Amino acid sequence: MTNNGEKVRVKVDIFGQDYTVIGDKSSDHILKVSQEVDNLMKKIHQNNTHMPQVKIAVLAALNLADELTKTREDYKWLLDIIEDEKKSNKVSE
Amino acid sequence: MTNNGEKVRVKVDIFGQDYTVIGDKSSDHILKVSQEVDNLMKKIHQNNTHMPQVKIAVLAALNLADELTKTREDYKWLLDIIEDEKKSNKVSE
Repeated sequence: MTNNGEKVRVKVDIFGQDYTVIGDKSSDHILKVSQEVDNLMKKIHQNNTHMPQVKIAVLAALNLADELTKTREDYKWLLDIIEDEKKSNKVSE
Repeated sequence: MTNNGEKVRVKVDIFGQDYTVIGDKSSDHILKVSQEVDNLMKKIHQNNTHMPQVKIAVLAALNLADELTKTREDYKWLLDIIEDEKKSNKVSE
């Protein structure tokens, strides 16, 4: 996914505003990530049509941070399974 | 982490604004997630002192979506290792 260490600049539209995102990943990755934020903000707006844009963006960030915490916990859980498996294999050898 | 199906309401401060976050997780979890967003927005602000608040929040959301994509890929990678391990154990049985 990296781009040989070079920075990539991608113009994206998030909730009707243009942003230039600079990253070290592929433009496809940047577009995918931007689209996730755009979709989430549109979804929040649909359910709260009078909500100011800054609040919509903060709520999107909160949703993503919540999902990130959950995914980190799931990752840690799988890692523990693999570690336990390794230990029990060592014992049975 | 769940709260017996009851909704929890927690008042949090994110980048100087009060938000009432309603969720089905513990108040500790909501506070931790809110703090992650608050810290990230403050960090972005430190590096871009003239950036409007809405842009800071969108950039925070983009950072979190990027991290989430990466963590989901890492999770999928571990899951594949476990699946491969299971298959090879079946073959060797």
